[in-house]
Amino acid sequence: MSTTKALTPKGAATRQRIIEGTSAEVRERGAAATTLDDVCARTSTSKSQIFHYFPGGKEELLLAVAAYEADRVLFDQEPYLSSLTSWDAWQGWRDQVVRRYRKLGVHCPLGVLITELGRKTPAAQALTGQLLEQWQGRLRAGVTAMQEIGEISPELDADQIAASLMATVQGGVVLLLSTGKSDHLEAALDTSLALLRATAAPAKPRDPELLHVGASEDPT
Amino acid sequence: MSTTKALTPKGAATRQRIIEGTSAEVRERGAAATTLDDVCARTSTSKSQIFHYFPGGKEELLLAVAAYEADRVLFDQEPYLSSLTSWDAWQGWRDQVVRRYRKLGVHCPLGVLITELGRKTPAAQALTGQLLEQWQGRLRAGVTAMQEIGEISPELDADQIAASLMATVQGGVVLLLSTGKSDHLEAALDTSLALLRATAAPAKPRDPELLHVGASEDPT
Repeated sequence: MSTTKALTPKGAATRQRIIEGTSAEVRERGAAATTLDDVCARTSTSKSQIFHYFPGGKEELLLAVAAYEADRVLFDQEPYLSSLTSWDAWQGWRDQVVRRYRKLGVHCPLGVLITELGRKTPAAQALTGQLLEQWQGRLRAGVTAMQEIGEISPELDADQIAASLMATVQGGVVLLLSTGKSDHLEAALDTSLALLRATAAPAKPRDPELLHVGASEDPT
Repeated sequence: MSTTKALTPKGAATRQRIIEGTSAEVRERGAAATTLDDVCARTSTSKSQIFHYFPGGKEELLLAVAAYEADRVLFDQEPYLSSLTSWDAWQGWRDQVVRRYRKLGVHCPLGVLITELGRKTPAAQALTGQLLEQWQGRLRAGVTAMQEIGEISPELDADQIAASLMATVQGGVVLLLSTGKSDHLEAALDTSLALLRATAAPAKPRDPELLHVGASEDPT
């Protein structure tokens, strides 16, 4: 949330209204084309109010909007993402992710903002880094939970798996942005989950439909 | 290759020199900042020569450079990509991909060009679509080859796996572009390959160490 000062409840509400209005504006016309005048008109605020809450002007406002969009990325994956403790929850998460990105289509509001702020600026990098860390942390917690109940092999490194799932989602989204279709995203999530699922401890009764994982090739 | 006319060998060589010089220029300073004057200076050609080979000027030239960069994306994965018929070859491919993108770092020349040409223009979309198709086709051929020799479960859908691997690579690269580190790319490739490897036909003896992701267990 960058530079939030101590605000009154009313002040916080106004600040939030400005952020949400700017978010909607950016989603409609892009970050570069969004002006403070547009934001004033849309949120029924004055320029002086905007500068009161965002002394750095448009750049500071866009950074706050990017932080808001980053929160939404995670929020839109709930309630599943924070509670990946069954295959049903993982499937629910998979569906939610696909739904979110299909809906956004070829527009990635956070990507647009990060690009506008400058992908390599410290502020943008900090924001991206934090989002990735939180996202991956929740996936890792989910993998660990599944390992504890014997649904994913305990021999796998949960952090590696979480990093891999992050890449899977990002790649699927990038290909959706480029092709307009969610095929890759769905194939990648389905494949990853099916393969993980197939690593479950072999002590349990096997479902013949599951993949024959656990068997190996001999090293010739 | 867009609008290549029938060229003499010398003409084809000049055209190629212009493309390669422009590619180097774009890699150094970006597509937007590259001018035809820069290209002339770098490739020892005149403006009239450039317009002879690229009557559409900078835009046509950048499109030809994008096609060249797209070819390089595939070429840089050879000789492995076209011959993914053993786990050694897959490992070689994995290493080559990681090496390529580590070397490029936070710069993606093709991405820069596609952005400059307009991500949603028909020409850019055709180029991206073709690259994805070829890339995915070669991965699919590799998966099929491994299924035929019993190294990947025949029950898996080779096209889904190939699409998933495409997303894995793209996601890893996107995260590399954003974080500057190849951790996600490596984790994602290692996880995908380890999980695929573990699906091999169950007739063979089991190796309890096999599921340990990242462990290189190939004693060839």
